[in-house]
Amino acid sequence: MQPAPVTLSSDFGRFYPAAMRGVLLARGIATVQDVTHALPRQNVPQSAFWLRELLPYFPPAVHCIVIDPGVGGDRDVLVMRAGGHALVGPDNGVMRPVARRLTGSGEIEHWRFEHVQPGSATFHGRDVFAPVAAAVATLGIERLEALPTLEPKTDVVDLTLPTPTAIDGGFDAPILAIDGFGNVITGLPGPALEGALGETVWVNGDAVPMRRRYGAVEPGKPVVTIGSHGYVELAVNQQRGDDAFGVAVGDWIRLERTP
Amino acid sequence: MQPAPVTLSSDFGRFYPAAMRGVLLARGIATVQDVTHALPRQNVPQSAFWLRELLPYFPPAVHCIVIDPGVGGDRDVLVMRAGGHALVGPDNGVMRPVARRLTGSGEIEHWRFEHVQPGSATFHGRDVFAPVAAAVATLGIERLEALPTLEPKTDVVDLTLPTPTAIDGGFDAPILAIDGFGNVITGLPGPALEGALGETVWVNGDAVPMRRRYGAVEPGKPVVTIGSHGYVELAVNQQRGDDAFGVAVGDWIRLERTP
Amino acid sequence: MQPAPVTLSSDFGRFYPAAMRGVLLARGIATVQDVTHALPRQNVPQSAFWLRELLPYFPPAVHCIVIDPGVGGDRDVLVMRAGGHALVGPDNGVMRPVARRLTGSGEIEHWRFEHVQPGSATFHGRDVFAPVAAAVATLGIERLEALPTLEPKTDVVDLTLPTPTAIDGGFDAPILAIDGFGNVITGLPGPALEGALGETVWVNGDAVPMRRRYGAVEPGKPVVTIGSHGYVELAVNQQRGDDAFGVAVGDWIRLERTP
Repeated sequence: MQPAPVTLSSDFGRFYPAAMRGVLLARGIATVQDVTHALPRQNVPQSAFWLRELLPYFPPAVHCIVIDPGVGGDRDVLVMRAGGHALVGPDNGVMRPVARRLTGSGEIEHWRFEHVQPGSATFHGRDVFAPVAAAVATLGIERLEALPTLEPKTDVVDLTLPTPTAIDGGFDAPILAIDGFGNVITGLPGPALEGALGETVWVNGDAVPMRRRYGAVEPGKPVVTIGSHGYVELAVNQQRGDDAFGVAVGDWIRLERTP
Repeated sequence: MQPAPVTLSSDFGRFYPAAMRGVLLARGIATVQDVTHALPRQNVPQSAFWLRELLPYFPPAVHCIVIDPGVGGDRDVLVMRAGGHALVGPDNGVMRPVARRLTGSGEIEHWRFEHVQPGSATFHGRDVFAPVAAAVATLGIERLEALPTLEPKTDVVDLTLPTPTAIDGGFDAPILAIDGFGNVITGLPGPALEGALGETVWVNGDAVPMRRRYGAVEPGKPVVTIGSHGYVELAVNQQRGDDAFGVAVGDWIRLERTP
Repeated sequence: MQPAPVTLSSDFGRFYPAAMRGVLLARGIATVQDVTHALPRQNVPQSAFWLRELLPYFPPAVHCIVIDPGVGGDRDVLVMRAGGHALVGPDNGVMRPVARRLTGSGEIEHWRFEHVQPGSATFHGRDVFAPVAAAVATLGIERLEALPTLEPKTDVVDLTLPTPTAIDGGFDAPILAIDGFGNVITGLPGPALEGALGETVWVNGDAVPMRRRYGAVEPGKPVVTIGSHGYVELAVNQQRGDDAFGVAVGDWIRLERTP
């Protein structure tokens, strides 16, 4: 039987992903897909956001995820199964939001993988997570329980992305992420403001048109829209929204339908 | 029958390409090749240059191209067939120079793909172009006319890269692109200056040696050469030519064989 | 017979790798793996370090390597065989350290590939090295001698990474590389300081704890560790070590076990 495909996600940047890829290929995993190796460095909540938005588009696979500021410490090596996918990575919460998205109303199963500490305590992506992902892919996602030194685990580090607060006439919303174009992704679900499409909303007190697409305002002008993640976004047509609105990830903004 | 391979080119950077890749894999496209996701952001002419220089080296494939400053607006979704390749992307001209290169003296065929506006109007790469590319690849490039909601199109947005002007004793040439090494790629075809190889040319009035390779001058010294795209290039051996010559894409320079 | 897999490593960045990938696919090489295209620009010794640390994790393959500041000059095109892998690239030393690592106590074989100068003298990655790698992969690594215009070569440009000097009570060690996290990789093998794990070492006279992992010190605090390459590293937990220690590649540092 063919091994399951494996995807790789990390904050490793330019060099280290190749070592993980090599380890997987050397263990007979024919299909290794990079998701991204530019996740925000050692930033668990922001990485959790991007993984949740990207991995569900893949067909069932073993997703090997290395955002691991606690590398070499006593955090567990976690194997999860959710919605036909497997997830392998550190037990620090980074995989929980995507697992909930993958499983829908189904169950998430968790195991702890007991490993021998490798020679180096600084690159578990290469020395622990990639080999475990290869073993899961070779066994098959449906049969992963057969992996030696795997034991069911119940006390898992959880992580929930922040959610907005309703206020009189609007919302206080967290900024979850800023993409490469400078679009500012808030945690306010689009339906909450959908009625304002074509009208004006107030962002921290400033009037901004709310439209279905960036190009509905002139280039260089601010716009509030509902982005491809289903959340309210702050943007500037053909320029950077984060600069224009003067915000960063982790900030909260006030969104109102009346001044 | 195996689906045709699909290539991906965009200005999406770090995160969004994975969603497109996932959509293609989930639709059974086994071979998905990244060309680049670092095309100049929302820059149609510069992206058109790089696509023209890169895609013709690939074997026949469905090239999915997303440089789309007008996303969500009324620009058409375009499917082209040229020289055995298919191209899927926005009707903004970005695919025209590469289509002419792929087809040689042959014909370019164009269709408009009528699509339902997806939930989000901001990520057609994931929600429109990747699914259309998957459908074309599954049908086969030679049979793509069978795709539903596809209709022949004649009024296509065209784009032609700027060409040099002959002047007395030389040329005024546009700068088409600057590569990652800082090499300055002009729009002047190499044969126009080939006779000056081994001699001196004047760049905006300054004498510069013209040589076949960068290393024919000392490290740090300027050189005019004929680059790998077949155009006259301004470079500095082992350093950045754009800094030394003080030029940017879109500038015009004067190239002369006598002072 | 299936062609051998080919890997690609270069300093080409965003655009040019796609042309090499296209050339390989067009010649029937089904498996083309990117190692990295962000090797330090035109820097032979630093690139040699990263190749030595990354390629040995791959299963046997034809490794096409383009770090080539002398492109178009009279440096030879080199084909090597070491430990069941083949290496194709310029004869400037960049492939020697990885070849020694791949071959262990075995032999390294070298050939010079005589090629016709292509139209352009500036992109041998596309016009020379990729076609040669494709030919080697198609013949098979064990049969590569059958490649036309290949002749055994003995006078090869060598390159050895700098090694530390023992001093009274410690070592003067070169800095070989700095990774994307800012971890400073010295040339001092880990065993030389392993006895100091859990104790204090002096780095250029400053006392720093030596620990098995970054997280053994508080976030923001410096630590000396043994990194995943087997060398002594200078780091700061969850921040950049190169900034904190004020060092760059090529510097030498003094590491002592007593003040």
